[in-house]
Amino acid sequence: MLAEIITIGDEILIGQIVDSNSAYIAKQLNKIGVSVYQITSVQDDREHILKSFREAEENADIIITTGGLGPTKDDITKKTIAEYFQDTLKEDVYVRKNIEHLWEHYVKKPLMQVNIDQALVPSKSEVLMNKYGSAPGMWLEKNGKVFISLPGVPYEMKALIDDEVIPRLRERFKFPYIRHKTFLTYGMGESAIAERIEKFEDELPDYFKLAYLPSLGRVRLRLSAKGFNREGIEAEMERQTKLLLPQIEDIFSGFEEDISIEAIIGKYLTERRQTVSLAESCTGGAIAGRFTANAGASQYFQGGLVAYSKESKVNLLGVSEEIIEKHSVVSKEVVERMAKNTRIKFNTDFAVSTTGNAGPSTDDTAEDLGVVYIAIATKSNVYSERFSFGNHRVKVINKAVNKAFEMLQKEILKN
Amino acid sequence: MLAEIITIGDEILIGQIVDSNSAYIAKQLNKIGVSVYQITSVQDDREHILKSFREAEENADIIITTGGLGPTKDDITKKTIAEYFQDTLKEDVYVRKNIEHLWEHYVKKPLMQVNIDQALVPSKSEVLMNKYGSAPGMWLEKNGKVFISLPGVPYEMKALIDDEVIPRLRERFKFPYIRHKTFLTYGMGESAIAERIEKFEDELPDYFKLAYLPSLGRVRLRLSAKGFNREGIEAEMERQTKLLLPQIEDIFSGFEEDISIEAIIGKYLTERRQTVSLAESCTGGAIAGRFTANAGASQYFQGGLVAYSKESKVNLLGVSEEIIEKHSVVSKEVVERMAKNTRIKFNTDFAVSTTGNAGPSTDDTAEDLGVVYIAIATKSNVYSERFSFGNHRVKVINKAVNKAFEMLQKEILKN
Repeated sequence: MLAEIITIGDEILIGQIVDSNSAYIAKQLNKIGVSVYQITSVQDDREHILKSFREAEENADIIITTGGLGPTKDDITKKTIAEYFQDTLKEDVYVRKNIEHLWEHYVKKPLMQVNIDQALVPSKSEVLMNKYGSAPGMWLEKNGKVFISLPGVPYEMKALIDDEVIPRLRERFKFPYIRHKTFLTYGMGESAIAERIEKFEDELPDYFKLAYLPSLGRVRLRLSAKGFNREGIEAEMERQTKLLLPQIEDIFSGFEEDISIEAIIGKYLTERRQTVSLAESCTGGAIAGRFTANAGASQYFQGGLVAYSKESKVNLLGVSEEIIEKHSVVSKEVVERMAKNTRIKFNTDFAVSTTGNAGPSTDDTAEDLGVVYIAIATKSNVYSERFSFGNHRVKVINKAVNKAFEMLQKEILKN
Repeated sequence: MLAEIITIGDEILIGQIVDSNSAYIAKQLNKIGVSVYQITSVQDDREHILKSFREAEENADIIITTGGLGPTKDDITKKTIAEYFQDTLKEDVYVRKNIEHLWEHYVKKPLMQVNIDQALVPSKSEVLMNKYGSAPGMWLEKNGKVFISLPGVPYEMKALIDDEVIPRLRERFKFPYIRHKTFLTYGMGESAIAERIEKFEDELPDYFKLAYLPSLGRVRLRLSAKGFNREGIEAEMERQTKLLLPQIEDIFSGFEEDISIEAIIGKYLTERRQTVSLAESCTGGAIAGRFTANAGASQYFQGGLVAYSKESKVNLLGVSEEIIEKHSVVSKEVVERMAKNTRIKFNTDFAVSTTGNAGPSTDDTAEDLGVVYIAIATKSNVYSERFSFGNHRVKVINKAVNKAFEMLQKEILKN
């Protein structure tokens, strides 16, 4: 079963918006065994949209569009869909009620004609109710192909995918069974791993696929299998896992799930009822942000200090001016003091600290651009490592964040 | 002049990776007057890639591909390009030298055959040297159309776009002049603005285009004009700006540039030599992260405290347990105390604090899910506002971050 995702809207094509919707939709479709053949971003242009529908219908069984359902003049998805299906727009009374409800309870501004018009849908469509916004989702069928149109606002789209689209697709089609297993590895590049497990990869059965998913110093190995014999696939996946694991033992993180490292750490800390605090300099709050993006972080994440200036390191973390003068802000001495004092201040089991030159300039530190120190403090110990992450500000920050999580994970597992 | 961007790689189609490359490329092309007709994401599959090349060649003058240039078996872009151009691969001696240099100085691991093979390029291609990685960019031409192939690693791609692709395209083609002007507005929805300025929009000249770019409570109005008469376009843009501004006076931010609000604040604070500090609870470091993502943030951002737990609010911010007991953690009293104490602790001109229920649960607070208090402290004053941002954790955090920046901007402009 193949799908195509079509995102409609000039804002993607002018680079104003990064299309994160397609990745979400693709991920959810993959889970139920629908492969995405292509993702296409087209303009808010009638002919272009019609052309993309025709082409998608040739390639795919399920066509999902996002965007172009807003109330303004450049949003023409709905009337173009009606044209494609030789249909007309008519008001859906439930959508209208939903819009009136939203305006009364949340928007609290006068309801205008352009908003009411959002209740107009192609008469042949089934409405997918949008709890969070005025633009409804729509489901149409033609020659056995399913067309689904969703709003482009990410949280509205997500709710419609989870609550409406996926359950309805499962009902409508008989999907093959699909099984993914992801092995998170550290410390070895994509090509080195590929060379090492070449024989394993060559001998995989036809219905298996191995993907290398590299990201900032880590590589996820993703083994996928698809078919109708569920038991057979499960047994073969287990056999392949047993063949693979001994070959990657030294670089394997221990996790066969596709979750983020901060979520892995969160699981460990919650299970062990342990806590962590942070003192971030060059990472500037990014580690805290990654922790707190996970629901339930308050169980283990006590808080952190973003000590961006020298003064804040002195006043708030009690790192003495003498130490900073002697060793400079970007140094082993400073980063270890930061971690140690932070752990005591927040009274946590672990503390993580960072200091470095993210760039573009190195200010008055003794170290090169891209040099970052990361320290871990425990109740009995504190230690640090020095890294050199290159000369891209964003890359330096991201690599430092990932490395800090990696060091913390290792430390937790020691205890 | 039209371009098509083709991203190659299964990782986008399985939703493992969000395609942020295309937005960057589209933005840079737009600046020089090249419109992106379509963005297409295709699989690491020979036939699919060839099909996308054929279709793109029909629609566009410039075809830019990213991805599929890695050293592993699933990376087939290069040999497929060679096939499309009826060409063969040959080693480029400069690329090989670059790879040897990178391995010796940065990778510091044994150079393997798969890495050396990355120096193989189609014999008809011009190499675009990749300073940051082993996969070179490639430039090929066919029937007056330009094909450019770039690696998928974002920072490698960006450097190649900036340093090689854009300058070479400017040399190769005579581009029309393009002018954008973006008006950042607050506090009014897309549809309400559209209704208000309907007449203005209807009367725009044919070569002008107005786009509404909404994002979390703000709408950017983007006026674009394109043509060969540079002076005429500039004059007309000025005339249209003068027509538009009085109509949006009450919602206009004062900025006609397309920069982020944190960058706007950074400019103000740097100019005025003022500083800011933060106490973040529900936003968990996200405000700090947004500040520090900007180079030069150390000029005005002193630091912040992520006070995620009640204990950290008590111990580190000196908010008394009595106040928390009496009013609950999510309250006007707590948020104002947080801002006030933080400003004093960091000795800054301004401090911003947040506390709220981002969800999914409200713990033991008295307020509903989605309720967030934000406070601003100055040297003479502290005040706060209460907001209700709905029931999506990520949305609540993002809206709170944006609202905090908005309040801070207003406060800075008062002084």
